[in-house]
Order: sequence, then C-alpha cells, then structure tokens
Amino acid sequence: MNLQDIYQNLKKDLQRIEEKLQESVKTNHAELHDSATHLLKAGGKRMRPVFVLLAGHMGTYDADRLQQVAVALELIHMATLVHDDVIDDADLRRGKKTVKAEWDNRVAMYTGDYIFARALEGITRIQNPEVQHILSSAIMRMCQGEITQIEDLYNPRQSLRRYLHRIKKKTALLMAISCRLGALVSGADPEMVRRLYAYGYYVGMAFQLTDDVLDITGDEQVLGKPAGSDLRQGNVTLPVIYAIAHVSPSNREKILSHLESEGKNGSAEEILAVVRMSGGVEYTMELSRRYLQKAILSLEFLPSSHARESLRLIAEFIVRRSY
Amino acid sequence: MNLQDIYQNLKKDLQRIEEKLQESVKTNHAELHDSATHLLKAGGKRMRPVFVLLAGHMGTYDADRLQQVAVALELIHMATLVHDDVIDDADLRRGKKTVKAEWDNRVAMYTGDYIFARALEGITRIQNPEVQHILSSAIMRMCQGEITQIEDLYNPRQSLRRYLHRIKKKTALLMAISCRLGALVSGADPEMVRRLYAYGYYVGMAFQLTDDVLDITGDEQVLGKPAGSDLRQGNVTLPVIYAIAHVSPSNREKILSHLESEGKNGSAEEILAVVRMSGGVEYTMELSRRYLQKAILSLEFLPSSHARESLRLIAEFIVRRSY
Repeated sequence: MNLQDIYQNLKKDLQRIEEKLQESVKTNHAELHDSATHLLKAGGKRMRPVFVLLAGHMGTYDADRLQQVAVALELIHMATLVHDDVIDDADLRRGKKTVKAEWDNRVAMYTGDYIFARALEGITRIQNPEVQHILSSAIMRMCQGEITQIEDLYNPRQSLRRYLHRIKKKTALLMAISCRLGALVSGADPEMVRRLYAYGYYVGMAFQLTDDVLDITGDEQVLGKPAGSDLRQGNVTLPVIYAIAHVSPSNREKILSHLESEGKNGSAEEILAVVRMSGGVEYTMELSRRYLQKAILSLEFLPSSHARESLRLIAEFIVRRSY
Repeated sequence: MNLQDIYQNLKKDLQRIEEKLQESVKTNHAELHDSATHLLKAGGKRMRPVFVLLAGHMGTYDADRLQQVAVALELIHMATLVHDDVIDDADLRRGKKTVKAEWDNRVAMYTGDYIFARALEGITRIQNPEVQHILSSAIMRMCQGEITQIEDLYNPRQSLRRYLHRIKKKTALLMAISCRLGALVSGADPEMVRRLYAYGYYVGMAFQLTDDVLDITGDEQVLGKPAGSDLRQGNVTLPVIYAIAHVSPSNREKILSHLESEGKNGSAEEILAVVRMSGGVEYTMELSRRYLQKAILSLEFLPSSHARESLRLIAEFIVRRSY
C-alpha cells in the first residue's frame, strides 16, 4: 500500500467532501465566491479530511457525519490560510499599497471570517454541542498561536519550549482534532479517541518540524516558494534557534544582527548558509523523527486494520517527504 | 420611565454580563488580553444585551441562559468592531506604515477571530444547536454585508434597495437576532419570537439610518469622530445617494467627481455642504421614522408589560437622539 492507494480507498468520500466544500462557499456575493473558490481550487492535500475518515474507521463508520466533520475542519484550515495571507501580500510589503490592495486585504479578512463561521454553521447539522465546542475552542487556540507567532517575529531569544508550543497551536492541534472528531462521531471508545488524538498531535508536530526544515533546505521549484521565506518574514524556526545557540560567536552575531535589524543587516541567503552549516537542520529532523515514532506508537493500541496501516504510512510519508 | 430607569432595572443582569465578558477575554496571551480588554473598557451601550434581556421577559426568564446569550451577541459585536478597524487605521492610511503598525493590524485580525470563536464556544454551554446555528449564520451574513460595503466603496450608482440590504446585514440583523434569541431561549411562543425579531430588525434599520444622518449633520464633539467620516472612507450612505439624484446638475457632477476620484477631486466639506442642502438628510430621517413606527407596531401584539414599554422607549430614543 502506498499513499496513492490510501487516497484511492477514500476516493468516494473525498469526492463528496469536495462537493460539499464547493457548496459551502457558494454564495451570490461575487467577490466572496471568487476568493473562496480560488482557494478551493488551489487544492491541497486535504490531510484533515483524510484523518477524519481514517479515524472514523475505528468506530461505526457513518459516511455522512464524517464528511460533515471533514468539511468543517477543511474550512477552518482554509480560513486560517486566507487570514495568513492578509496584509502579508507582496503589494503591501513592497510599500506600494494601492486602494485596490487595501480592499483586497479587507475582502480577504471578511472571506476568512465567513469561512470560519460557515464551518461552525455547517457542523450544527450533526446536532452535537461537544463537536461544536471542540471546533470553536480549536479556532481560539489557533488564534492565540498566531498572535504568539506575531509577538515572536524577529525575536532571537526563543526557547525550544516556546517554539514547540507555537507550532502545536499553529499546526498540530487541528490535525489532532481531526483524528479525535473522526473517532468521536463514530462512537469509538474513549481510549481510542484519546490515542487517535495523540497520533494526530504527534504527526502534526512532525509535519511542522519537517516543514520548517524544508523552508531552510528546500528547492524553490519543489516548495513553490523561495527557500528561506520564514526567515524573510521574521518567523524564527527551530533550525535558526538551534544555530543561534551553537554556531561560532561571529556567526551568532550575524544572525542576531540580522534579526534585530528586522532583516536589514546582512542578507537572508547569508544567514541561511550559516543555519544550514550549524547542525540545526539535523537536530530539527531528529526531533521530527522522534515525534514520528511517538505517532506510530500511539497507533499500536488500536486494532490492526487497513485504516491503522494507512495512518502509519501517512505519518512516515510526512517526515520522509524531505529526502 | 426613561432610558436610565431601563438600565437600572436590568442592572444586576448587566453587571453579570459585564463580568462574563471580562472572563471571556481573559487569556494568558498579553497582546490578546490587552487588545480585547481595551475594547471592553471602551464600553458601549450594550444594546444587544439589553435587547436579549428585555425579550427574555416575554417568556420564562432564565437569567443565566439569557446572560450567556447576551455575552455571545456582545462578543460578536465586539469582534466586528475589531475587524472594522483592521487596515482602516490612520497609520496605514497616511501611508506611514511601520512594521509595528502592520503587526498591530495582524494582532487585531486574530483578536477579532478569537472573539468570534469565543462567542460560539461560550454559547455551546446552553446546549441548543439552534442557537448555535442562528449565531454562526448571522456572522456569515454580516461578513457578506461587509464585503458588499467594500464593493460599494466610492460607488455613486447605488440603489436604495442595495443600501437598505447592506445596512440590514451590517446592523439590523444582529439586533433582530438579539431579540429573537432572548425570546427563544425563554420559551416564548413562536409568534412572539417572530414579532420580537421584526421589532429588532426595524429598530436596527432606524438606528443605522439615524447613524448615517448623524455622520452628515453631527457635531464632532458629540460623535467622538469628525463629521463626514463615512464619506471620507468612501462609504456612500443614503443622504448622499439621495443628493446625487436630486441636486442640480453642477452639484451632482461635484459629488460624482469626488467619488469617482476616490475623494481626490473636491473636498469632503464641500460635498457635505451639498448633501446637507439636498433634502437627503430629511428624506433619510423620514425613512428612519417609518422604521421606528414599524418597530413600535411590532410590539403591539405582545402583552402589555414593563419590558414591552422599555422596548418602545428604546426604539424612540434611537431615532430621537439626533435632535
């Protein structure tokens, strides 16, 4: 079994989810419809829906309920992507802000708001206030994570603990909840729900750590964006945090000066070269592999099944994609 | 009975609502806590909570449930205020965008997101998916209204119908829902719920029409912002729409040129003077009074009570405040 087989097995449900996502953003507001549809068509791996469906196999599989949960989670993920792009867009950062650019930003903000609300509105159909509570709490915590990330921009003095806390809220939480809710609405027993939550959390951590490594080492053509975009935006990731603590005093000074000047002193390329040589990449990948191990261990409690095997393969792929 | 008596009668509940609002934005994230608390302390008339409580008197008054509904509605209102301010702030508009200003904007966006989610999270406690559905749908429709407003910025060709539709989503909807939910969670009979919804809707329309007039005629010291700020932001309100259709060709050309140049041709003061002379203010006030009449008529079906009398007084005050 490979990744393609997993998607093939879930094909029917994923197609329905795709249709429901399209229905969700159907509105007679042209601007809203266009921006939401653009995002939908951009696709993505639909990881959260896949987690929901696979976790659903650990209980009594109810395709319709699981699809609704999956749609809500994917909409929440989409809304966060829309808001991540607000203000960040190149037009603004180059200082050439036009009225149009300002409008686009405002439209993007309300489009994100709309999609968040749509996620929580759609899920009321499954008549389970606990699910509603879990999703709205998740959005709150993700917002806290985003604000922490803004507070920490260009901050060279970040503990490993604070970094991990941040990526948990940014990424791991929603993956954990995808697994949890898939199991929960399928009536899986509480211990299974707990283990699947842990699996999703560990996978999410491994995923974000790998992502942060790929941003340092990756190829622009593979990533679809230039390497080092985190650094350029002031987002200090673990390889950089590690480098600050482990490189020579002169290189350390280069990184600190670059960050403290908000990117004005020294070039990002220069800093990336220092980080790549520091051992920070290897350290981060090792941590990612440890989370992967924990994810796989969390699955051992579950009965052997096709779904369990799929979850294991996804976890491995997530970390391996960097090679 | 006057407005002060109404607040006095609801004092205990309003104080608990204030405490719950403060608890709602309590978080260990300094930035988030600061910006949300700042907003809370800025106060406001707490109109939506007042509507919830008064409508609650039409059924079996359950203070705790009503307070929770009131808190959710006030939080949604607060979140929209936070997002209205995003990007709009003076720092940005004067083109002096600093990194700090950009961060503040991003923090404001996520603070708004957090407050929206908090509203929907808090309300899960009353275990009523219908309430959840009404609130999340309301947010969706308010977002559509905001996007329409952005699309219509500086657009001189707006129908009365489109304008009314816009202010409905922007303002009247949340007031209507406040009345509806207060009645609904108190188990008032469906016809009463419907009438109270209508009351809230008509009051909300009258409120926004009056607000749009005050922005044209008002005194900076009373408003707390310069007169004409709608026009300066490109927000074309009914007095202006009326003026375009009724002033002399040369004055009409002045307004059109001002709007089509996005405020560059001619001064806002000049346009405001034309609008003030056009009869648009009187026309808008007359429409506001008609909505007020409809609001008061909606109350007639309800049994005579202290709460009903309070709702009538509030409606009258909302329109009269302009004199």
